[in-house]
Amino acid sequence: MNVMPRPPKRRLGQVHVPAVTLSHGGGGKAMKDLIDDVFISVFATGSPEALEDQARFDLAALAAHGDRLAFTTDSFVVDPLSFPGGDIGKLAVFGTVNDLAVGGAKPLYLSCAVVIEEGMKIDELRRIALSMAKAAAEAGVTIVTGDTKVVQRGACDKLFITTTGVGVIPPDRILGIDTVRPGDGILVNGLLGDHGAAILAARGDLALESEILSDCAPLHGLIDALLEAAPGTRCIRDATRGGIATVLNEIAEASGVSIEIDEGAVPLREEVRGFCEILGLDPLYLANEGKIVVAVPAEEIDAALAALRAHPLGAGSSLIGRASRGEAGRVTMQTVFGGRRIVDMLVGEQLPRIC
Amino acid sequence: MNVMPRPPKRRLGQVHVPAVTLSHGGGGKAMKDLIDDVFISVFATGSPEALEDQARFDLAALAAHGDRLAFTTDSFVVDPLSFPGGDIGKLAVFGTVNDLAVGGAKPLYLSCAVVIEEGMKIDELRRIALSMAKAAAEAGVTIVTGDTKVVQRGACDKLFITTTGVGVIPPDRILGIDTVRPGDGILVNGLLGDHGAAILAARGDLALESEILSDCAPLHGLIDALLEAAPGTRCIRDATRGGIATVLNEIAEASGVSIEIDEGAVPLREEVRGFCEILGLDPLYLANEGKIVVAVPAEEIDAALAALRAHPLGAGSSLIGRASRGEAGRVTMQTVFGGRRIVDMLVGEQLPRIC
Repeated sequence: MNVMPRPPKRRLGQVHVPAVTLSHGGGGKAMKDLIDDVFISVFATGSPEALEDQARFDLAALAAHGDRLAFTTDSFVVDPLSFPGGDIGKLAVFGTVNDLAVGGAKPLYLSCAVVIEEGMKIDELRRIALSMAKAAAEAGVTIVTGDTKVVQRGACDKLFITTTGVGVIPPDRILGIDTVRPGDGILVNGLLGDHGAAILAARGDLALESEILSDCAPLHGLIDALLEAAPGTRCIRDATRGGIATVLNEIAEASGVSIEIDEGAVPLREEVRGFCEILGLDPLYLANEGKIVVAVPAEEIDAALAALRAHPLGAGSSLIGRASRGEAGRVTMQTVFGGRRIVDMLVGEQLPRIC
Repeated sequence: MNVMPRPPKRRLGQVHVPAVTLSHGGGGKAMKDLIDDVFISVFATGSPEALEDQARFDLAALAAHGDRLAFTTDSFVVDPLSFPGGDIGKLAVFGTVNDLAVGGAKPLYLSCAVVIEEGMKIDELRRIALSMAKAAAEAGVTIVTGDTKVVQRGACDKLFITTTGVGVIPPDRILGIDTVRPGDGILVNGLLGDHGAAILAARGDLALESEILSDCAPLHGLIDALLEAAPGTRCIRDATRGGIATVLNEIAEASGVSIEIDEGAVPLREEVRGFCEILGLDPLYLANEGKIVVAVPAEEIDAALAALRAHPLGAGSSLIGRASRGEAGRVTMQTVFGGRRIVDMLVGEQLPRIC
């Protein structure tokens, strides 16, 4: 990581670059053409029902995957739209895939609703739609329906994407953040804070240059491997906004346990540690987009760790702490200097528009 | 309708009004408190799973309603947030309920993702959340999961809401816009253009004063009555952005038929007609939020009309035209002056941010 002066912004020449206009949001021919050109052409996967106003699935076919439908939504407002390791499109697909996966669901279908600022370059929109299509293919989900709105210049910041996901949970999977018991192990699947640090560096406002990539990745394969090896797993949460500190607090509160983590066992990249020192940030609160916090019963810790480490997205997995009978809802950390400090819920805002 | 000078804007006094800050979007304690206070308190309906990060439903319970799952999404960016007859919250609930209903589905569950501009008054947000809760109760759907993002001042215009809906389609309902045949009747369920006119008046920019209310309403009850009386119904579409002209063009194109409508049979309020004359708008393109276009086989027209008219939301129903063997994809209108004109897809944009 180097602290560097920011290069001057490049100016576009006078070449005409096709851009989104308000007529692309009017519901008429321009909108249909834009949707056909930018979205349908890359999302539609041969299914005649793909991207109709309403998608339809046979309930019997869904039931082949499990007994419960999972349903989750997220809006993505990340700034900038592209950053090292990803962009808003990839994030919008993997983010919702992960929200399904951490509940034990097999992710199946996504909807995609976009709000576009007038003036956005169509090429940039196309690039992001392609990124979504590629991410969906990688995660094995289909984008089946969507919506497009255009607002006048200044009424939104380039592009917001809302994805909603549908998945199915196999019958044997019972996960819940209120099921953690004293003695359970708390695991993470690798280096923390990369997404937050990558966004921060990409914003450029802080004149930081780094090689850190967002960890943005689909986690359902890793979670399948974990649940196979450690079927007693209590709960899984993705540590996005608010970082692992927020997830640990939510688990401790919901389960009525105390959680103690060991600073020395928390996997952190040296560059991220450096970032946080310079900027006065706490890495426990940095956002991740490819990291989960897992609680497993004591007797399954070894099996869980081995399964996580055997997966490409879990090579850096670590047992970072334990649940205990201490004060309910309290999260503490044994520091590398031998002290102990409280890890509270995030009170202010570290980094707006991180996802 | 009167053309009036616009009254001066009222100024708020110096009283402190609690507003949304960036920390409300940070994923930490402030966000949890805001969500609990504004959303959970009004959305949660006794179900312990309501508004968890991921909602879950038994597939077997869903199958009791039908054999196919319906899934649809819409972002709402209407400006202003409140208007005569509704607000963005009511619109976001009924809009997605109607998108489910026009496909024949029984609407069941909604997700709600909000993007809030820093500085929005919490009281205004609360009022809109309450409006969503009231609309959901009226439509018989439950808001089961959501997401909250806050962006800095100027990065969005107050509030955008994306709702995604899940419903179930009974086995006997086969509707599709590619199923219309020559001879079929084309019906609408009442006065057209009220929503578009209400928004236009509410914006105030045009210094128009009127008593027109948005027609925003949940249409699944009306659609149930229609399908009961006219089980051969080919297709149903809600005539939102782009108005009935856009829907008619989509049907004509998808079904490979021509559609001829009769201007004299198109139900229009005098005030809306006046609006359109003053502003040079075509009422066929004005948005509706409580109106459907229905295609039914000739032998079921009378039964369909009677069923629609017997429902409170269909009292003004009218047979406005017929599908024919003319040029495929062509929509024409017999004018009250005896001429005939082409009704094309909307090419430009009449009214941005109408929904």
